[in-house]
Amino acid sequence: MELLRKKIIQDGRVLEGNILKVDSFLNHQLDIELLNEIGKEFKKRFEGKEITKILTAEVSGIAIAAIAAQYFNVPVVFAKKSESKTLDNETYEGNVYSYTKGKQYRVRVAKRYISESDKILVIDDFLANGQAILGLKEIVDSANASLVGVGIVIEKGFQDGGNLLRKIGINIQSLAIVEKFQDGAVVFKY
Amino acid sequence: MELLRKKIIQDGRVLEGNILKVDSFLNHQLDIELLNEIGKEFKKRFEGKEITKILTAEVSGIAIAAIAAQYFNVPVVFAKKSESKTLDNETYEGNVYSYTKGKQYRVRVAKRYISESDKILVIDDFLANGQAILGLKEIVDSANASLVGVGIVIEKGFQDGGNLLRKIGINIQSLAIVEKFQDGAVVFKY
Repeated sequence: MELLRKKIIQDGRVLEGNILKVDSFLNHQLDIELLNEIGKEFKKRFEGKEITKILTAEVSGIAIAAIAAQYFNVPVVFAKKSESKTLDNETYEGNVYSYTKGKQYRVRVAKRYISESDKILVIDDFLANGQAILGLKEIVDSANASLVGVGIVIEKGFQDGGNLLRKIGINIQSLAIVEKFQDGAVVFKY
Repeated sequence: MELLRKKIIQDGRVLEGNILKVDSFLNHQLDIELLNEIGKEFKKRFEGKEITKILTAEVSGIAIAAIAAQYFNVPVVFAKKSESKTLDNETYEGNVYSYTKGKQYRVRVAKRYISESDKILVIDDFLANGQAILGLKEIVDSANASLVGVGIVIEKGFQDGGNLLRKIGINIQSLAIVEKFQDGAVVFKY
C-alpha cells in the first residue's frame, strides 16, 4: 500500500535496536484519514469473503479495527490483556509469549461475543514473531469459529511470524512489509 | 441522546453493586454504527467550536474517539496508562486516583503530540468521579493547550464527577446521564 509506505518513510522513526516508531500516526497519535485508507485496503484484500466480526487485541489494534469495521459493516471485539473486573467469568483465552517482555500473558474475550457461526477477520497493527496472532487464533479456535484471515498494517518481514502463520495456512494480508533497516532508513519488501 | 438510552436499556446489564455493563456495544464488543451516531452527536454538541485534536485515554476511549474524529477532521491522541517502552521520555503526565482500584496511576502523552496552539476536545466512555478527566486536563494544562470541552458517552449522575468538573468551568457534554438504578433497571436523568 503505497500511501502507507510513504507515510512510514516520512513520519516513522527508526530508533536504536531497530525499533520502528510509528506513534505519530498509528499507535499513540492516530491519523484518522490514513486509518480510513487502511480500512478500505483491508476491505479490498478480503473482497468476497464472508466476515461477521473483526477481532483485535487491546491496545494498538482497537482504532484500526474500529475504523476498518465501517467498510465491513460488522462489529469489533477486542481481546483484553489485563485481568479486568468488568470482564465476564466465562471467557475464551489465548496465550501469548512476549519476546520483548520475556513473559507470557493471556488475551481474553467474553464467550458471549464469539459464537461458532462467526467468520472472523483478525486485525492488528504489527506482525513480528506472530505470537499475538496465535493467541487470537487460539480464541477463535476455542469458540469453534472460523478464522477467515488476518489483516496486518506493518509486517516485520525479517522476523519469522509471517512465515510461521502462512505455513499453517492462514491468509495473512500485510499492507506494508519491512525487509530491513539500512542506515536508519526503512527498506520495504513491498 | 435517545438512541443511546434505548441501547443502554436494551443491551446494558445492571449487575450487583450497581455496575452498569455495556460491554456488548461500548467497551469490549463495539457497535460501530452506534459509535458513528455518538460521533455525530458530539460534533453537534460542540458545533462552532474550534477543535484541533481529540484526546482520550486507553483503553475504552480509543474506539469512541477514533470514530468521532471523523466528524471533526482532526487527529486523536490517546494517553497511555502503562510504562510503555515505546513511549518517548519527554511526556506530559496526569495523575488519576482510581477509587475502584484504590490506588493512583499516571496517564501520559508524548510532548510532541500536544502543543500550546492545540484546542483539545477530551472524549471518554464513562464519567463517574471525574478523576480520569482531571488527569487528562492536567496533561492539557501542562502543555499550555486549551481544553475546549469534554464529551462523555455515559455519565453516572449519582456520582460527583459531573458536578466537580462543571463547577470548575469545564464544558461537559454527556450523551446519557444515569440518575439511578432501580430494581436492576436504569433510570435516566435525561
